[in-house]
Parts: sequence; C-alpha cells; structure tokens
Amino acid sequence: PTDTGSGSGTTIFTEMTALAQRTGAVNLGQGFPDTDGPPAMLEAARTAIAAGANQYPPLAGLPELREAIVAQRALRYGTHYDPDTEVLVTTGATEALAAALLAHCAPDDEVIVFEPYYDSYAASIALARGRRRVVPMRPDATGRFGFDPDDLSAAVSRRSRVLLLNSPHNPTGTIFNAEELAAIATCCRRNDLVAVTDEVYEYLTYDGAVHTPLATLPGMRERTLSVSSAGKTFSATGWKVGWVCGPAHLVEPVRRVKQYLTFASGTAFQVAVAQALATQQPWVRAQAARLQANRDRLRTGLVATGLTPYVCQGTYFLQADIRPLGVADGIRFCRELPHRVGVAAIPSAVFYDDPADGLPIVRFVFCKEPQVLDEAARRLADLT
Amino acid sequence: PTDTGSGSGTTIFTEMTALAQRTGAVNLGQGFPDTDGPPAMLEAARTAIAAGANQYPPLAGLPELREAIVAQRALRYGTHYDPDTEVLVTTGATEALAAALLAHCAPDDEVIVFEPYYDSYAASIALARGRRRVVPMRPDATGRFGFDPDDLSAAVSRRSRVLLLNSPHNPTGTIFNAEELAAIATCCRRNDLVAVTDEVYEYLTYDGAVHTPLATLPGMRERTLSVSSAGKTFSATGWKVGWVCGPAHLVEPVRRVKQYLTFASGTAFQVAVAQALATQQPWVRAQAARLQANRDRLRTGLVATGLTPYVCQGTYFLQADIRPLGVADGIRFCRELPHRVGVAAIPSAVFYDDPADGLPIVRFVFCKEPQVLDEAARRLADLT
Ligand SMILES: CSCCC(=O)C(=O)O
Ligand SMILES: CSCCC(=O)C(=O)O
Repeated sequence: PTDTGSGSGTTIFTEMTALAQRTGAVNLGQGFPDTDGPPAMLEAARTAIAAGANQYPPLAGLPELREAIVAQRALRYGTHYDPDTEVLVTTGATEALAAALLAHCAPDDEVIVFEPYYDSYAASIALARGRRRVVPMRPDATGRFGFDPDDLSAAVSRRSRVLLLNSPHNPTGTIFNAEELAAIATCCRRNDLVAVTDEVYEYLTYDGAVHTPLATLPGMRERTLSVSSAGKTFSATGWKVGWVCGPAHLVEPVRRVKQYLTFASGTAFQVAVAQALATQQPWVRAQAARLQANRDRLRTGLVATGLTPYVCQGTYFLQADIRPLGVADGIRFCRELPHRVGVAAIPSAVFYDDPADGLPIVRFVFCKEPQVLDEAARRLADLT
Repeated sequence: PTDTGSGSGTTIFTEMTALAQRTGAVNLGQGFPDTDGPPAMLEAARTAIAAGANQYPPLAGLPELREAIVAQRALRYGTHYDPDTEVLVTTGATEALAAALLAHCAPDDEVIVFEPYYDSYAASIALARGRRRVVPMRPDATGRFGFDPDDLSAAVSRRSRVLLLNSPHNPTGTIFNAEELAAIATCCRRNDLVAVTDEVYEYLTYDGAVHTPLATLPGMRERTLSVSSAGKTFSATGWKVGWVCGPAHLVEPVRRVKQYLTFASGTAFQVAVAQALATQQPWVRAQAARLQANRDRLRTGLVATGLTPYVCQGTYFLQADIRPLGVADGIRFCRELPHRVGVAAIPSAVFYDDPADGLPIVRFVFCKEPQVLDEAARRLADLT
C-alpha cells in the first residue's frame, strides 16, 4: 500500500517529502513537527552526551526510562507494569511493531488491521509472512470514521492470531470510542487474539476526547502489547525512542527478536525522555492545545478551498474529500499539488489494500507553525 | 548460539554485563569502550540537537553523512559509491545485517558464515528462515585463527545464496589475509553468492595489519554489501549509526526492508558522525595505537595468569585458551569468574553451532582504560 506505482520502492512519506523539497512546497505530507520538543528535554540530551551516555544502553532500555514509562501510564491510565519484565524500550514504535509481529505472528497466521492503516503494518505483517485481514473504517454522517462490528466478526477466522489497533488513528484522526473498544476486546477474548496497540498519538487528543488503552478493558491486559513512543508526544520524531508494555510472556518474545534488529539505541535520548515523561506533562498539554488550534486553522483553510474535511479527534492528521473540487484521484492530485500550488499532502489511498477504496481522500498534517498552515491555505486557495 | 543454557533468552553480552554489575566485576565481556569518542564529535552532536536536528532524517540517511562515508572509503580503499543509490544509513551495523539478510536470503536459502561467528548472524539468518552453513576457523601454529579453503568449498551447495564475512573478526581478532580473501572471492563468483561483509572493526587494526574490503577484489564490487558503523571507530556504541554500501540493485532491497524495521534514526548523531569521518581520522589512528598497547597489556596479564592467548590482529577482542589452568569448560568458567575473582569475560563457545567446539576458549575485551586492564590482570592472578 506504500508504493503508489512509481516503482521507487520507497514510502509515500519519503517520496512526498522529497517532492516538497524539490518544488519548495509547504510540506503537509510526512508527519513531523517543524518545532522541536521541550527545551529542557533537548538540554537533558545534550547534558547526557557530555556526561558520557554514549555507549550501549541495556537491551531492555535504561531502567530510569522503563520506570518513567510505567509511572506515567499508571498515573494516566491506572495500569501497572513491572519495569524489569513488562517494558521494553525500542528504536521507535516502528521497531516495536515490527518485532511484535515477527515475534507473535507465525507464517500464514492472520493479522487483523483497521483500514485505512499506517503503511508499516502491511510491511511488518509481510515480513512475518502473515496474512492481513482488514476491517474497513468508513465515515458516518458527521464525518467521523468508524467500523461496523459485523465487519470485524467477518474478518476473524480460525487462523486469526493478532489484532493490530491504532488509536488515536492515523490517517483518519479517529479515537476509538468505548463501544468500539468493547467490541474489539470481546473479539480478542473470544478468539484468543494477541492485541498490538499503536498508541503513539496517545497525548495528541482534542475537544476533550479521551484515549483509552485497549489493555485497560476487562481481560485485555494479559493479551495486549501497548506500543508508544516519545517522537510524537515530545516532538522528537528523529530520536526514535519507543517502547512496548505488556505481560512478560508477550514482551519476552518481542525482546528476543528486537535484540537482533538493532540491539538497543539512543542512550542519551533515553535519559532525556525519562526526564521528559516525569517533568514535561505541562508542555505536552500545551502542545495538544496548540495542535487543536492548528487543526481548526487547517480545517478552515480546507473548507475555504472547497474541500470537505472529515472529523479529527486526535493525531497530527486531517483528512479531506477532494471531490468537491471536481477531482476524484487523490494519488494524481497529490503528485500534482506541489507543482500546481506549492503544497504537499499524502493520498490516503496508500493506506488501503485497494487504493480505489480511499482514492478521493487526501491527508494533511497540522503539526506545523500556524503561519505555515496559513501559507498552505493561501496556496490551496489557488486551486479554485 | 547466544543462549548459554540459562534459558534467559537474552544475549550472552547482556547476561554477562548484568552479572558484572551485580558482582562489581571488571567487565571484560561486552565489547564497549569505557571512554567516549572524539570530544569534537560529542560536541557536534550536542550542537546539532540545539540547532534542531531532532526530526526524522531522510530514510537513506543525511546526505552529508552518505557523502562522508563514500569519501572516506574512497580515500582509504579507492572505492566509488554513489551516495544517492549505493549507500544506506542504518540503526547500527546490527540493523544493516538484519535487513541485508531479510532482503537477500529467501526461506531455505543457505548462508555461509565463518565459525566462531557474532551472535546476531545466526539470529538474523533464522529470522529470514535461511539455513546457516559454517566454515570452521582454527588456530594455526602461531595461534592465528584461519580457515581451510576445502572447508569453504564443502560448505557451498546449490542452495547457497549469501556469504557473511566478518573481518576484522569478532571474536578471534583475525584479519582475513590476501590469500583467504581471494579464496572467498573466488567462491562467491563461482557460486554467484551475495557477500555481506561486517567491517565494523575496519579501523581497529594492529601491527600494521591491513584490512582489505572484500568488495575491492576483482568482480566483487557488484556482489558485495559492505557494512560498517561509527560505534567502534568513534567509541560511540550507543549512538547506533551504521551503514551499508553496495551496488544499487543490492542496496535497494535492503532499504525496502530497513524502512519498516526502524524507518530512520539518530539525526543529530548522523550530523556528528559525518563530521567525525571527515575530521577525526587522527583521533582514530591514535585510538588504534592505544588499543594495540591495551591488547599487549592484556596479553601480558593473561600470560602471567597462565592462560594461552591467541593472535589478535584487530578488533577489541583477545581470546585465550583456559586449559593451562586445568579447566576446559569456558561457559562454566565465565559464569563463575565474576564471583571467584571479580572479572567478567565471554565464553567463545556461544559463537559456535556446537558449543563443544569452542569450549575451552574465553574472550576478553581490551577497549578499556589501561588501569582497568591492569586491575583485571591483578584479579585474574588470583586464579593461580
Ligand atoms: C516514518 S515517516 C511517516 C511519519 C508518519 O507517521 C506519517 O506521516 O504518517
Ligand atoms: C550489542 S552487545 C555486543 C557487543 C559486541 O559487539 C561484542 O561484545 O561482541
């Protein structure tokens, strides 16, 4: 789903960022902020480098980081994990997800994902030689993407082994609600599935929407690997400090795989993220408020252009339907957009098994400075 | 080969470092230096963090780093690579090796490795569902480990697909010589093998011994993926900045896999390593001289203890035969050593398919301050 037919064999994010750079377009494609995270966190990393945190961290991650992860999740979600056996630090959520699938999906096992889905999921499932089964998400009358529980039931078979849930959800911006989570939990319990939850946008939630980890639902802690990372929470996507929490019997196989993917990385960043988790929650709250305002700003710009935005409850992403502009092929639209008006975006079609299913949808990021979003809106206005 | 039977499912390095920490032993087990790399490099990383190098680097790595890698290899080995299509930056050599094997070894393909072999090789081959075929290395009369070309021929079959070469070699300290390299190159050409060369100790060579990349032999550039990293060269094992160079048709599939293992990591470290490759060669030469002196110091200490060291031409590692002490089981010996005299080392048995083949050999690191090596020698003297 990542290759849009260019044959470049690279992710859509790389392709669109390169195109934005070549054309001088405002890059609302790849999801990374244009402003770095909390100054105290950056300073902590610099201090750690000077102080000698430059050799291998322990395979499972620095103890202080594992403890900070556990403490923060306890505070926020009331969960309890043993930092020694139930937490593993990874090279970003990407490595956590790849290792989780390689560890828990055997060849020909089926993995359930909600579609549209983040591009690395399909690749990791393929690497594990598993089979992908999708549950379609569709917009309701309000423009919020959700799923039909019957579609979830239909996706399950005797070969189902893992369910991969991303909430807050990239690219739709949906935060799965209590009813949806209950249906998912029931499905996992009934069919004895391992749930792998990608929660990297857990702090980026808007309008009071609440993110509830699947692991907190009845019977789910023992079968859930909760993945998150510092990249989005603390605007440090290049640090690649991620983690996975879960029962020891599920984390242990992930560790076995992970140790041979990268061993362990980013010692000084681990020091800084441990501090940030404990001390920078006010910054994170302020950042979520800034992002909510950015989302509204971008939405206004898209509406003014004639696009129809969908509902976004969390993440960095706002999707819109381009058909009001009289075009229906988002892939072509996104390839041309940098040249036509100087804006880059991602065609949501790349997040579908069959690109046709998401063809008229385009994803814009709003993790950029307000004036950058305004400039993008001005440029997009030229479309009409 | 990594699990010594403790069932811990962790690498021998993690096990022994944890044991060293628990017992207060001098840790000559896991290979990491106790002194950080060039101050200018550390400062460059700190400056890069302050200057905003905290978001995703390009998937292939920062252009300045790819150019520095190419330039340095050109200077040193006379090779030429296109920084855009023939170089890929990775999360350490470990990720480069894992991705190379996942990309180039199909299920049931055979991968040739020289035994003893670094622990991640077997794991990466297993992850790719390949089969390992070993070529034994044995000490000659001088104590240098080498291999018999007949054993190499015997290891090849119609299913052979990849040959994995590590030179300078961990754990033996062997630098494969011209004759050995020629035999390997001939074997690769004749059998149409892809060579993956782990050259992470390329700068850590002693007594004037020369490291020659396999890729520089006739007909080999087009079939070789050369892997190296900053970790050992610049004493920054926790930074996890590695890379792979090779023809585009071999690098491209590695990039496709790598992008879903970790995407791309360590932006600020990539900035600093690019600078270090260009400006810190005098530091690297001085470091190699210090390591050579350390090796001699450790060797003297081991001989005084009654152990018989083997020849070490490069790397961080010096192996020794423990049989002169009247013991033959290196695994048991290494498990007890921290408790008995307060020194940690690695049983080389873990680097063999059949631990029995390397049972009386123990590996000590010498990438430690001279006084640390002296202290280890004093403690080891209590063995006799
Ligand atoms: C790893 S590049 C993709 C960044 C991202 O999470 C997104 O844009 O969806
Ligand atoms: C990744 S921990 C192992 C370090 C090392 O290269 C070794 O000790 O052989």
